[in-house]
Amino acid sequence: MSLSTLRIIGFILGIFLITLAIAMLVPMVGLLVMNQPQDLNAFLWSSLITAVTGCFLVGQGRPKNASLRPRDMYFLTSASWIVVCTFGALPMVLIEHMSYTDAFFETMSGITTTGSTVLSGLDNLSPGLLLWRSLLQWLGGIGFIGMAVAILPLLRVGGMKLFQTESSDWGDKIMPRSHVAAKYIVLVYFTFTFACIGAYLASGMGWFDAINHALTTVSTGGYSTSDNSMGKFSDAAHWAAIPFMLLASLPFTLYVAAFRGNLRPLWKDEQVRGFLLILCGIWFVFTLWQWHSGDHAFMDSLRLVMFNSTSIITGTGYAVGDYSLWGSFAFMIFFYIAFIGGCSGSTTGGLKIFRFQVALTLLRGNLKQMVHPRAVLIQKYNRHVLDEDIVRSILAFSFFFTITIGLLALALSLLGLDPITALTGAATAVCNVGPGLGETIGPAGNFGSLPDTAKWLLSLGMLLGRLEIVTLLVLLTGAFWRH
Amino acid sequence: MSLSTLRIIGFILGIFLITLAIAMLVPMVGLLVMNQPQDLNAFLWSSLITAVTGCFLVGQGRPKNASLRPRDMYFLTSASWIVVCTFGALPMVLIEHMSYTDAFFETMSGITTTGSTVLSGLDNLSPGLLLWRSLLQWLGGIGFIGMAVAILPLLRVGGMKLFQTESSDWGDKIMPRSHVAAKYIVLVYFTFTFACIGAYLASGMGWFDAINHALTTVSTGGYSTSDNSMGKFSDAAHWAAIPFMLLASLPFTLYVAAFRGNLRPLWKDEQVRGFLLILCGIWFVFTLWQWHSGDHAFMDSLRLVMFNSTSIITGTGYAVGDYSLWGSFAFMIFFYIAFIGGCSGSTTGGLKIFRFQVALTLLRGNLKQMVHPRAVLIQKYNRHVLDEDIVRSILAFSFFFTITIGLLALALSLLGLDPITALTGAATAVCNVGPGLGETIGPAGNFGSLPDTAKWLLSLGMLLGRLEIVTLLVLLTGAFWRH
Repeated sequence: MSLSTLRIIGFILGIFLITLAIAMLVPMVGLLVMNQPQDLNAFLWSSLITAVTGCFLVGQGRPKNASLRPRDMYFLTSASWIVVCTFGALPMVLIEHMSYTDAFFETMSGITTTGSTVLSGLDNLSPGLLLWRSLLQWLGGIGFIGMAVAILPLLRVGGMKLFQTESSDWGDKIMPRSHVAAKYIVLVYFTFTFACIGAYLASGMGWFDAINHALTTVSTGGYSTSDNSMGKFSDAAHWAAIPFMLLASLPFTLYVAAFRGNLRPLWKDEQVRGFLLILCGIWFVFTLWQWHSGDHAFMDSLRLVMFNSTSIITGTGYAVGDYSLWGSFAFMIFFYIAFIGGCSGSTTGGLKIFRFQVALTLLRGNLKQMVHPRAVLIQKYNRHVLDEDIVRSILAFSFFFTITIGLLALALSLLGLDPITALTGAATAVCNVGPGLGETIGPAGNFGSLPDTAKWLLSLGMLLGRLEIVTLLVLLTGAFWRH
Repeated sequence: MSLSTLRIIGFILGIFLITLAIAMLVPMVGLLVMNQPQDLNAFLWSSLITAVTGCFLVGQGRPKNASLRPRDMYFLTSASWIVVCTFGALPMVLIEHMSYTDAFFETMSGITTTGSTVLSGLDNLSPGLLLWRSLLQWLGGIGFIGMAVAILPLLRVGGMKLFQTESSDWGDKIMPRSHVAAKYIVLVYFTFTFACIGAYLASGMGWFDAINHALTTVSTGGYSTSDNSMGKFSDAAHWAAIPFMLLASLPFTLYVAAFRGNLRPLWKDEQVRGFLLILCGIWFVFTLWQWHSGDHAFMDSLRLVMFNSTSIITGTGYAVGDYSLWGSFAFMIFFYIAFIGGCSGSTTGGLKIFRFQVALTLLRGNLKQMVHPRAVLIQKYNRHVLDEDIVRSILAFSFFFTITIGLLALALSLLGLDPITALTGAATAVCNVGPGLGETIGPAGNFGSLPDTAKWLLSLGMLLGRLEIVTLLVLLTGAFWRH
């Protein structure tokens, strides 16, 4: 990597840091409005340190004649998340005197919209810190959408070439040019946020809770202002959350057309249809089972199942009640759906629906090919031919995903975590969901009691999951660093 | 499927049944030699019923001018295992008055060389029945090798096209023509069996135990004559078992050349090298960990780790001691290595080494391609170009494998099994390993206490695993039954 490349990357990282420093002013405004000035200093100092570092990097200047090659984007993308996380952790260290390990974990869990927490006693936590956690998720959410729409498809990451907007029979019809699209996506994100605040207020939440939860709902983040998560709030709040978690799991690119009055692309999209179909199936089977085997009234079963399963499949990670006590079948369902995730181009984690759909297409094709060995089958997904390149990169991605979770769980078990905690902890981190299963890290627990090494490993897992694994992994290859 | 096709298939199934009926005479000879004639009648009746059914099917005649198309082989292959299992269960019903569910499970676990058992009190069981269980595994082992060498590669199952013997740069040099090869493979199988009997005798086992364990070692089956499995026998017996479990996990096709004096193909084979390398790695790390964390002497740690890990990775399923009590790290290792399996063309189950190696090649290629998007990379495995067909079928196979285990575990959890039992039970069945993990079905437990539905589901899982899943699954597609 040449010096001028490094300077451009430094310049861009500097801009991110300055943005972060400005974002740190938001909780300060909140504290002033709420007339709780005790933590103002902590945010001021954090903001100052971040801003000074950012200005220093920007001050190095941007070389005029140099530009970034696509491969430099891997480095820039990975570095951005790490740098933002490193500085984003400052307010937590200064306010709560958290160890840097805990603060880094909490911040990484925030910006990757995972939602795993090391904190307990959230109900009495400093409002500034609560707001900062929520804001981290909100910023991480829009940051990830931007990355998923603009950068990853170009980088041939995990079959996301499928979503390249240059492709003639796919993107052009529904997408305006990318900087216009970006503006619209931000607009959609803001609209969802305000609508969600309104919905929560209508459900009876106070202003502070409504704003915090709206920020972490539309980003499918899942941080809450209470140890009981959404369990603290009314049934109406649970019902209000479901549609917004859903909206946040659909491809934001498709909203752009919808916003301009053309609902057809959103309605016709195979990913959207597949996601809603799977979700309805889970709701139906799971509600019947829970109603039949539990001691809840039907409407309560429906609410608990719809809320919690939507929360986990979208990777939000809110919980109402301790669903890990619902028995073995529920345990397996919650374990599995964390892997599914939402649609590509949204804030959700996991393997994403389109990869399952492509796999299903391939499986059907494979069986057909076995019966008709000489037939030439052309397989399509969303009117896109599945060429060898896409198939190979989805295969590679799925393997990397599985191996990453497997190795992470193995490392966690080596630290003494029991198999359930190790396995579901690794899965919830890499899938960016939030809670694990079992007593320690389940919906009623938190990650605070884990050893420090486990927290660093899980932070790495969350980052890997958010960067669709290969973006970070490619930096470890010899081929990347040669020349 | 035409009537003449059905008659050929019936004819072949009849021959299998007559062979099975003859095999039932072997335990009778054993009982006569041991002078324990009490169960002779049960075997006589089982043999008679099987032989009469077989003769009836053969008696229908074989149409002169008809032949089987490749696709009929899916049906024939699947039907063979089911029919043989159905009749192979008869002696168990007649001798031990087992329910047919238990007998079917035990027989399926036998012929698929899985080794899960519903029986306890093996040490006092009828010697005829013990011998019959061992013989089922031995027959299932050679049956599977035949299928894996001669049939599956032709059927494009799960990337096994890689092992097609017609391919010019692969098979011809090391393989004589297939019927000669078949003769040699049987010869190798017999040689291993006799050598293994000798080794066990030398280790201090009695004749009966030595013969039984030799039959279930060279087939990587794992049925034992004691509830303590190999734990009943001397350290020397454990050391004797390890090389034979290993020999049984390498491709039998390569032994043919080795038997004729040419050791090079065996030594140069990437699958063999990869398998031995992985195994040595596991032995090394795991022994150090077990020695460090347990309270065993170094040589005991080495023996326990080498024996149990080899037993699980090869899908044999013997146990020495209850390794599920070794702690979380050991738990994860044993859970993972069950999926790996041995080499294609052996009696082992699991995903098989070559699929992991091909995946690794693809992963490396994928990362390289991300750095050099325009490079044309040709990926090879064992000097075989990995064309799109192979990549797609390995992708499909891996997905099917994962989905099968996932759905089976979900179904088991619906029956009330705890998550660990459900997940490891499903995995051990589909991977054809034997014991699961946890208290119920772990190395110290057995499958007897599971509900009947679970036993049928696990039987299906073992069959799916043995048929490399797609062979059975293709029968469920519409395309298969349309002309």
